[in-house]
Amino acid sequence: MKTRRVTFLPFDKTVEIDEGTKISEAAQKAGVYINNLCGGEGVCGECRVRVVRGEARQEDGATSFFSQEELDQGFVLACQTEVHDDLQVEIPAESMLEEEQIMTGETRDGVAQGDSVVVHEDQDLTLYPLKPLARKIFLELPEPSLEDNITDIERVSRELRRRIGWHSYEITLPCLRNLSDLLRGNQWQITVTVVRDNKGYKIQKIEPGDTTSSHYGLAVDVGTTTVVAQLVDLRTGRVLGVEGVHNTQAQYGEDVISRMIYACRKDGKGLQPLQDAVVKNINDLIDALVERMGIGREEIFAVVAAGNTTMSHLLLGLTPCSIRLEPYVPTADAYPQILASDIGIHIHPQGILNVLPSVASYVGGDIVAGVLSSGIADQDAVHGLIDIGTNGEIAIGNSEWLVCCSASAGPSFEGGGTTCGMRATRGAIEALTIENGSLTYETIGHAAPRGICGSGLIDCIYALVKNGIIGFDGKFDRKRDDPRLGWTDGVPHYVIARADETETGNPIVISEPDIDNLMKSKGSVYAAIKSLLDYIGMTFDMLDRFYVAGGFGSYLNIRKAINIGLLPDIPEERIRFIGNSSLTGARMALIHEEAFEKCQTVAKSMTNIELSNYQPYMDEYVASLFLPHTDRKLFPTVDY
Amino acid sequence: MKTRRVTFLPFDKTVEIDEGTKISEAAQKAGVYINNLCGGEGVCGECRVRVVRGEARQEDGATSFFSQEELDQGFVLACQTEVHDDLQVEIPAESMLEEEQIMTGETRDGVAQGDSVVVHEDQDLTLYPLKPLARKIFLELPEPSLEDNITDIERVSRELRRRIGWHSYEITLPCLRNLSDLLRGNQWQITVTVVRDNKGYKIQKIEPGDTTSSHYGLAVDVGTTTVVAQLVDLRTGRVLGVEGVHNTQAQYGEDVISRMIYACRKDGKGLQPLQDAVVKNINDLIDALVERMGIGREEIFAVVAAGNTTMSHLLLGLTPCSIRLEPYVPTADAYPQILASDIGIHIHPQGILNVLPSVASYVGGDIVAGVLSSGIADQDAVHGLIDIGTNGEIAIGNSEWLVCCSASAGPSFEGGGTTCGMRATRGAIEALTIENGSLTYETIGHAAPRGICGSGLIDCIYALVKNGIIGFDGKFDRKRDDPRLGWTDGVPHYVIARADETETGNPIVISEPDIDNLMKSKGSVYAAIKSLLDYIGMTFDMLDRFYVAGGFGSYLNIRKAINIGLLPDIPEERIRFIGNSSLTGARMALIHEEAFEKCQTVAKSMTNIELSNYQPYMDEYVASLFLPHTDRKLFPTVDY
Repeated sequence: MKTRRVTFLPFDKTVEIDEGTKISEAAQKAGVYINNLCGGEGVCGECRVRVVRGEARQEDGATSFFSQEELDQGFVLACQTEVHDDLQVEIPAESMLEEEQIMTGETRDGVAQGDSVVVHEDQDLTLYPLKPLARKIFLELPEPSLEDNITDIERVSRELRRRIGWHSYEITLPCLRNLSDLLRGNQWQITVTVVRDNKGYKIQKIEPGDTTSSHYGLAVDVGTTTVVAQLVDLRTGRVLGVEGVHNTQAQYGEDVISRMIYACRKDGKGLQPLQDAVVKNINDLIDALVERMGIGREEIFAVVAAGNTTMSHLLLGLTPCSIRLEPYVPTADAYPQILASDIGIHIHPQGILNVLPSVASYVGGDIVAGVLSSGIADQDAVHGLIDIGTNGEIAIGNSEWLVCCSASAGPSFEGGGTTCGMRATRGAIEALTIENGSLTYETIGHAAPRGICGSGLIDCIYALVKNGIIGFDGKFDRKRDDPRLGWTDGVPHYVIARADETETGNPIVISEPDIDNLMKSKGSVYAAIKSLLDYIGMTFDMLDRFYVAGGFGSYLNIRKAINIGLLPDIPEERIRFIGNSSLTGARMALIHEEAFEKCQTVAKSMTNIELSNYQPYMDEYVASLFLPHTDRKLFPTVDY
Repeated sequence: MKTRRVTFLPFDKTVEIDEGTKISEAAQKAGVYINNLCGGEGVCGECRVRVVRGEARQEDGATSFFSQEELDQGFVLACQTEVHDDLQVEIPAESMLEEEQIMTGETRDGVAQGDSVVVHEDQDLTLYPLKPLARKIFLELPEPSLEDNITDIERVSRELRRRIGWHSYEITLPCLRNLSDLLRGNQWQITVTVVRDNKGYKIQKIEPGDTTSSHYGLAVDVGTTTVVAQLVDLRTGRVLGVEGVHNTQAQYGEDVISRMIYACRKDGKGLQPLQDAVVKNINDLIDALVERMGIGREEIFAVVAAGNTTMSHLLLGLTPCSIRLEPYVPTADAYPQILASDIGIHIHPQGILNVLPSVASYVGGDIVAGVLSSGIADQDAVHGLIDIGTNGEIAIGNSEWLVCCSASAGPSFEGGGTTCGMRATRGAIEALTIENGSLTYETIGHAAPRGICGSGLIDCIYALVKNGIIGFDGKFDRKRDDPRLGWTDGVPHYVIARADETETGNPIVISEPDIDNLMKSKGSVYAAIKSLLDYIGMTFDMLDRFYVAGGFGSYLNIRKAINIGLLPDIPEERIRFIGNSSLTGARMALIHEEAFEKCQTVAKSMTNIELSNYQPYMDEYVASLFLPHTDRKLFPTVDY
């Protein structure tokens, strides 16, 4: 079959697919999310896209959604149009899933420098076979006879073994309760939902007839700042929709430490509100997703959640109190599979929840998910991963060994701790340049600026030092004559967007203390990477590839991140920005049994190096509080 | 250590025990149950026994329970008296557990012919090590340090592995919930309850401090007629008490078939009352046992129940509807371990219930328990087992192979279907002889007779034919001049106890139709044994041992059972009456993990031979409707 290339604008993502694939499917493969209210039936008209280059012809019925002018412009419904040519397809804002590019930040290969990047078929769809943690199997059983009078449940198990493999299937009493009548009342045709847990296989639900056409799962990234959920069609492994919300635990504490303190209040009443908050977040996300997709909550049967160790504890209602204090001991690092309803998540009453296992107090299931989704643990070559959030967690290794560590990065790259910092949502300045004295920026959603997010801050620091506005020590050149340079109470700041440009009517600035915080954040991250490599006797050039994950939205300028000394100065092409790898990993574990198993192995086999009392790390940290670094030789390609 | 023999009267049971053993423990080993309200503390005075032969000296404090006259007569408290001599000990009626000898009918080796029989240490205490399905283990954990900062639950698991073996322990969320605080609030001293299920090991409960001194289990025989429960001390495996009640399902139908019909009423409302009835029975038994032993319900943590396939289904709330009809298909033959509270059994909220697995629709967990407790499946030699109740279930085999079958025996041997039949409880005539025209009988509890139970009926048939009162065809010799021979509406009967002898003031009689029913019952049982042996190409003399179980109370005259053609004519010493082997097996599975595993293996490996459509069985049956049998050569030693 012939291969075609489709490039999606404005993301500039290109995917290679088989001829005849629908544009909507190509978009999914490319990690570009388009509205899909009717599930691809061509009846909602919500997946309008414009073919700007190449020939495409949609199904006849779909033309009724467009005016003649629109048809002339190349508008088609993505779900009703097959690809038979190399195409460029523009996705209008109204067809994008709300905030999708922001909240998920999911991308496989880098979008560095705005280059067009070929997104191959998702690794998770090729490395592992599609075997969701909860599988629905339609069975037509032979009727019993005197020659074949095994028990009803054994008849079910026998057919299951024939269909999905020679396992022993654990049975729950509710599934047995009505089985006899159910089989005999429905011509021996049933749909069995089999669930994989830490130990084996379990028959979790038996329904009359064939219900396999409706089977959904949820992948959740439980972040300290943001909770993001993907609704996944478990028949295909495809993402149907994604939603994100602020983690409303924030009302009890902005960062992990302050939430632990709240959870461990002496009156013993701190834990429940934190659990309730995140459970409500997830329920709200489910509400939004099922409403948009027009399905019922109870059609969702499996949830896989990834989060740091504290978030995982809080979600499950486990006290995180001893995580915070030396010797940093969590209650558990592997969590039992439970009914989602056990903690109040509203999906099918028998539906399951798996929280991905942690490695240590400060290396959680989100990093295990990241290792999984980046494929580090599947390679002979040594790869690295850093997930930059409030903490920077780093994993290095290959299929033979894995080490990890974590370092407090501070909230700077997530939009906290700076005067005008914000999360990577609509209106955030995500890219910025100063050239020939002229400052230009781009905002997410092309909206009026409301603040500046992590990737914008990285660009900003680089632009400031590159143009000599700040020195290598991060201090402003106080002698410089620059209209954007201002002072508040003796503290210098730089105006990025004037009051008349912004949505709020307040200027967006970066102050010297902001820069100081960013220097500490980037120094902490770099020092952690360096210390971990030193610890295992490796150097940067031994890293075949280095993945960067984190809440930067869909955009991170790798070159500039190197230039400010956040990332090591290795050839740029070895560094890949992979967005929200926690979410990707959670989805992989949801739809691939082998990926789920791999998570357990990764979590168990990864060696955590505790940096908090490790003197070389402290030394590295101090040396990193400079642009790009005290030891310039470590950054030979930096251009200032 | 020196071995001593203790014989318990009036049961005439002898046990060999180590010198220094308490009389109360010796009684338990002998299967003789003595009141034990205070748990052996010597404070309730309820275990009064009289040493009639041999020297025994009780603890000084115990003498206060007796008058000088009693002390002179040899009265001691069984729990306060060690054995240092061969003893004969008489147990007064008031010290016996109520109805114990009746309801449990548990005995290991035969009590045939009233001979004194040595009861060796229970097989279940020697063949398998003591490892209850639910084990309590007190752990003193090392406090975590930076060098040893594994998670709390892993710290628990690690210590468990050291203590009870290298398993992976499944964790339930409730156990994790409070673990962190629980460990740190109790100097790292906890008691863990580990449960074995069909798949592996599970940490089911974690408590502060050392609670191992209180740990109980319940073995239940869920019979169609009677539900019997033993309270077992899981620390020692010893039986602390036993209680039995009529299965109140009887209100919905006397036998299994009529209960199935009720359960499968068209309105769908038949199943619940049947489940409720047996659950209430079990709860009532628990109430009685915990009240007598002075423990709390929640101190019971594990229940193992054995019953026929229909009883097992009804207990678990599974419809038995397709069991009854060709091709006789149960919903399940292996049942998941559940929380006892899931079906309303009131023990510890996290306590478990295991229902022993069945083999087929008419060969249930009670027979699996019987195979287990008789040890058939552990021997090289071929042994047989028959459990005589409303059905006669037969198992034959050895450690290599097992076959089984079942045949409807009718209710005669359980006290139904005859004019004056009754269960083997107080006042039942359980033994009977007619010698030189003089009829003598014994009743259970030496009470005034109220009726005649299975063992009494066997004796009765034998006495009647032996004395020529009935012929080989079971018909009365109508010409005989016998004052006990009477007529009602033209139907002859024989008076066993005159109206003035009985409790009710009504005579106890056996009529010709009664005898006819008994002939059918014994014929059916014998034909089944014979057919099964023929089927596998064996003869009676190849049976190294033949165990007989059933609701005969503690008494069954083997010789007379052979003489009437109920049991095959093999040397008597090869036949052992083992009482309620279902209850014994349930207790073994409760206290020996390996016995529990063995049940699963036995249930899976046993081949069921369906007799219902098997012509040779029908032929054998017809030939068996004679005393002792149409083919006299099969019963060469019969003495009439």
